[in-house]
Amino acid sequence: MNNRKKGELSWYIPDGYIPPLSSGDLVSHESICVLNCNNETAHLKVTIYFEDRPPLEEIPYEVKGKRTSHIRTSSLEKDGEKIPVEVPYAIEVQSDIPIIVQYSRLDSTQKELALMSTMAFPIG
Amino acid sequence: MNNRKKGELSWYIPDGYIPPLSSGDLVSHESICVLNCNNETAHLKVTIYFEDRPPLEEIPYEVKGKRTSHIRTSSLEKDGEKIPVEVPYAIEVQSDIPIIVQYSRLDSTQKELALMSTMAFPIG
Amino acid sequence: MNNRKKGELSWYIPDGYIPPLSSGDLVSHESICVLNCNNETAHLKVTIYFEDRPPLEEIPYEVKGKRTSHIRTSSLEKDGEKIPVEVPYAIEVQSDIPIIVQYSRLDSTQKELALMSTMAFPIG
Amino acid sequence: MNNRKKGELSWYIPDGYIPPLSSGDLVSHESICVLNCNNETAHLKVTIYFEDRPPLEEIPYEVKGKRTSHIRTSSLEKDGEKIPVEVPYAIEVQSDIPIIVQYSRLDSTQKELALMSTMAFPIG
Repeated sequence: MNNRKKGELSWYIPDGYIPPLSSGDLVSHESICVLNCNNETAHLKVTIYFEDRPPLEEIPYEVKGKRTSHIRTSSLEKDGEKIPVEVPYAIEVQSDIPIIVQYSRLDSTQKELALMSTMAFPIG
Repeated sequence: MNNRKKGELSWYIPDGYIPPLSSGDLVSHESICVLNCNNETAHLKVTIYFEDRPPLEEIPYEVKGKRTSHIRTSSLEKDGEKIPVEVPYAIEVQSDIPIIVQYSRLDSTQKELALMSTMAFPIG
Repeated sequence: MNNRKKGELSWYIPDGYIPPLSSGDLVSHESICVLNCNNETAHLKVTIYFEDRPPLEEIPYEVKGKRTSHIRTSSLEKDGEKIPVEVPYAIEVQSDIPIIVQYSRLDSTQKELALMSTMAFPIG
Repeated sequence: MNNRKKGELSWYIPDGYIPPLSSGDLVSHESICVLNCNNETAHLKVTIYFEDRPPLEEIPYEVKGKRTSHIRTSSLEKDGEKIPVEVPYAIEVQSDIPIIVQYSRLDSTQKELALMSTMAFPIG
């Protein structure tokens, strides 16, 4: 219906946390859910901020045009370094073209799962 | 109290997922909750984006004036095609008049339900 | 730190639903959480939109200055009419001075509670 | 990728509540999750609003540059006063430099945990 840009270039998620335990059939995990409504591939750089050490900067990731990608945070990796479990952290997602970002967590640490979700915070 | 437009024309939900299983009395489902504060009917076009194939475009839906509609995603259909269960996807809702959109999921895959909800992301 | 207006005059929550059942010690309920950072009392008008009938309009409510109020939706009433349980609906909150509004639901229909929460959608 | 300010100076969370009970291994708690993408330390002032008494004003807190801090609300304290449990309240976070704020609650009052999360509401 229109040609406006669909989304923003920078997104922030202050509450990141990978639960260390799971129970039942569903594995505890987080997802950074990205929607790329453009025709071109979006080139992302994901930076991870910690409470007590310097950030893990600019992990690369690609999302094709007209596609979504639900990125498991446990799959992100740079120079062999991954996001540790059971540690509070925060996420910055930067893209070279406008995208939309939502964050969700499934926690099955205790039996029966719990869910939470929120749009990431965009900065134009 | 005012005559300003009530909402936006385009809304985005990157984290769509229809859980395949349910337990207990409550069925796992998602809802796209639309509020139309105008007097006229809103004509929606819902586009579904996937991770690995082209989008299912512009499924039509109507929400009457001064009404809300909590649309079960499993009810959306175009040319006999529906949103598959157990597949990560994303949602775009476009309307010909301003609306407000919230997304919620009830997951009862494991016993005892889990809920999540967020406002969709609007683009003016 | 500043004198800017703290909030907006109109807020929208498309996904309202009062669960009919509870289990355990916690009663299923929803709350419209209002923060009034001004010195004066905020005079609210809450309008309830339904899927299949005209709205229940402008239920009055007051929130004192420098106070919060977590309004149970089941307590709202106008001319003896209340919000029915087990019915999808939507909420509009209008205020005569700027406020901030968040919506939360606790559902204990099946054993063990589920929670969801989101900021309401503001329109300046 | 850019030099724009990363975040806002004031953030609001109308729905604060510290659950009084826990069960299982996980303790019920809330977190104010702050991300400070600047190089300098952010000096926060957290004000707590109640339903029936004057606010507890400007509890100080610091978040270092390029770090996140997931602040347990039960740890906030000013002149020996803390946020009481089992009481509805609201939160205002003010910072001297731009930050991003998300709010999350884990409730394990009844067995098996429940989660909720939302971005705080920013005022530029």
